[in-house]
Amino acid sequence: MANTEQVKLLGFWASPFARRVEWALKLKGVDYEYIEEDIFNKSSLLMELNPVHKKVPVLVHGRKVIAESFVILEFIDETWKQCPLMPQDPYERAKTRFWAKFAEEKILDGAWIAMCSLGEEKEKAIKLAVEAIEKIEGELKGKHFFGGENIGYLDIAMGWMSYWLPVWEEVGSMKIVNPLQFPATTSWMNKFLDHPVIKENLPPRDKMIIYFQNRSTELASRPHDWFRT
Amino acid sequence: MANTEQVKLLGFWASPFARRVEWALKLKGVDYEYIEEDIFNKSSLLMELNPVHKKVPVLVHGRKVIAESFVILEFIDETWKQCPLMPQDPYERAKTRFWAKFAEEKILDGAWIAMCSLGEEKEKAIKLAVEAIEKIEGELKGKHFFGGENIGYLDIAMGWMSYWLPVWEEVGSMKIVNPLQFPATTSWMNKFLDHPVIKENLPPRDKMIIYFQNRSTELASRPHDWFRT
Repeated sequence: MANTEQVKLLGFWASPFARRVEWALKLKGVDYEYIEEDIFNKSSLLMELNPVHKKVPVLVHGRKVIAESFVILEFIDETWKQCPLMPQDPYERAKTRFWAKFAEEKILDGAWIAMCSLGEEKEKAIKLAVEAIEKIEGELKGKHFFGGENIGYLDIAMGWMSYWLPVWEEVGSMKIVNPLQFPATTSWMNKFLDHPVIKENLPPRDKMIIYFQNRSTELASRPHDWFRT
Repeated sequence: MANTEQVKLLGFWASPFARRVEWALKLKGVDYEYIEEDIFNKSSLLMELNPVHKKVPVLVHGRKVIAESFVILEFIDETWKQCPLMPQDPYERAKTRFWAKFAEEKILDGAWIAMCSLGEEKEKAIKLAVEAIEKIEGELKGKHFFGGENIGYLDIAMGWMSYWLPVWEEVGSMKIVNPLQFPATTSWMNKFLDHPVIKENLPPRDKMIIYFQNRSTELASRPHDWFRT
């Protein structure tokens, strides 16, 4: 059976994109070998497996090689059917994909640029991210997770907000998710972090602070040079 | 049955994103009402249906409202099962999604920026688009369509290259797809255009030339302001 083939994941400890894939594999109970990649000195294995983007995460399943975290999440969900991440209904699936793309483009990119920039550019990026979270707040009201009672695709896609965003806020001396302004989002962030699979699969916070301080200083003159390495 | 509910599409005649949705609906034989949107004077209907992005295309199916062309394509494929657009195999699906995203970010955005800019920025954008097409050329070798014998998701996603790209090349006084350099891509572009459903669903070329000339002049100082309206 294809599903018994060996699974490998090339990741980087501070990457929220690689961590997404780990969360999905662990939630589904799929065994895998994790290979840490040095993104500042990329291995020949990474260059060979992902010659198009040369970035992590890369999932290897037997002879199949998949890149791009959202693409990998859908592949995992379609390959290992247990604990489905995507809803079954086509409209619910469409909404999930819509919000995942929205959060990636507006909140994640906005928060990253805000952390790496100063002055007017920073203020503009914070404003855009906050406006995006206003939309998400409405989607979350009355829900435990985006996926209902259990963590689903959209929770995994946006899960970085629970742990990476507070680090980026600290590094960038800024506030994007104000708990009083966004009670539903804050409550969801806490519930997500409190899930046993998630809380046991997070990088050390102090190490992240140092890493992102260095990255944001390095990228200060070009915040749009994104870190999806 | 949900699938007998009324289908409406809000589009704009020159939008390759709205046209994708039309191609998918026509290939599947789904009846729909087309509503032309004035993107320079957006209707209250568009603002109400797509408050997040305020952009076309928007698909309405009964009470369901879906935005973002790739999200709509997957919704259509999951809702109307005839003439499947996506492959069935999870790995083939992953590759389809990977290349669709790649082409959108590298070729479409690159070609657009190249058309709207001058000098060094234009040369850089052309180079990036050409390098991306080199990768696509390899994927197409020996194939009729990306989808095999029939037009599939990736053909629809990249179909703009057959008709919009030559217009952008003319408007931008540039060449991105050189037939001698990219014979497989050129052959695919011709086959795609020659498909009865596609060739009957294209905007008038002379009107497109004028429209994109105006847009590229207007956006010359800010080519990154994208036209996904």
